[in-house]
Amino acid sequence: VTISREFGSGGRTVGKEVAAKLGIPCYDSELIERIAKESGLSKEYIEKYGEYATSDRLYDNAMGGRDRDWQSVADKMWLAQKKVITDLAEKESCVIVGRCADYILREADNCLTVFIHASDDQRADRIVSVYGQREEAPAQRLHDKDKKRKAYYELYTGTQWGQADNYDLCLDSGKIGIQGCVDIIARLYQTCQQSA
Amino acid sequence: VTISREFGSGGRTVGKEVAAKLGIPCYDSELIERIAKESGLSKEYIEKYGEYATSDRLYDNAMGGRDRDWQSVADKMWLAQKKVITDLAEKESCVIVGRCADYILREADNCLTVFIHASDDQRADRIVSVYGQREEAPAQRLHDKDKKRKAYYELYTGTQWGQADNYDLCLDSGKIGIQGCVDIIARLYQTCQQSA
Repeated sequence: VTISREFGSGGRTVGKEVAAKLGIPCYDSELIERIAKESGLSKEYIEKYGEYATSDRLYDNAMGGRDRDWQSVADKMWLAQKKVITDLAEKESCVIVGRCADYILREADNCLTVFIHASDDQRADRIVSVYGQREEAPAQRLHDKDKKRKAYYELYTGTQWGQADNYDLCLDSGKIGIQGCVDIIARLYQTCQQSA
Repeated sequence: VTISREFGSGGRTVGKEVAAKLGIPCYDSELIERIAKESGLSKEYIEKYGEYATSDRLYDNAMGGRDRDWQSVADKMWLAQKKVITDLAEKESCVIVGRCADYILREADNCLTVFIHASDDQRADRIVSVYGQREEAPAQRLHDKDKKRKAYYELYTGTQWGQADNYDLCLDSGKIGIQGCVDIIARLYQTCQQSA
């Protein structure tokens, strides 16, 4: 099961609860450590750039990679990320949150890809209650994070982030609720297992 | 419950079966008759243009509406479509397939909006088995229909067709199966009813 999510949609919580319900592991921040080990890059670097592309770096990239160092490091990280995720998925059933896992595992037969989203208002409320107030307004924080995740996803996958076609299942966690999302995903997983 | 769907994804069948399972009416081709009555336009016209925008008409529209007749007739149809759908949704619980109903009912509290899609290969197989062979290749038929539905949706709603954010729930009917989609939607509808 792979879970992509808009910032503040509660996708990470959904992933953890689905994994707990199904009795399988959930990889989220644990991935960072594994990618660091695989690539030799620092955990801090992977945390900062592993899902986010910043506009100046994208610009450099578009201009033919003037910042060649960044490009090669980013590509190295992408390859490590791909290897770690493919290995985990081959080894056992698991939930993987973020990091373009849906794209990396798109050819896998028995992979369920999920996208979790919610309205801006509901996500703004959630990030303030989960991560606390920041100097930057919640709406701005959402906008920045989404933009960088979207840019990273599109740079490495060549497909559109949040386009329904790219996922087996997309859920509005604000409308359906975290628990509702968990129930739908867990039930679908069990149905797929039975028919496999 | 509103159901938007890619051509050949089986969204109409899903809608009918959800309605049957929940014991509520499903409006699909029945809408055409009602819109015809409301607008005074012919059923043929509504069938042809009620969900589809053709590129030459969009072009005229973009150029400031040289084809004013078409524009005013199309707008008249849109207003009738909006009224018919709003009235139906106010009167009783129902399933409405297509016709931008998700957008028209976006402010309604107790509306569940669903988008059904499937891979091109699976849709091509389905349209051949459901509608039979045509002179035009299945891939071309899919492409044309999707393009016109998408253009119509975007012209009248100003938002993007098939973008996960616009729906409560998006399902890949090729992966999950028609019956799987029906089960998820019906169960979610019942949960929403209980909590309402």
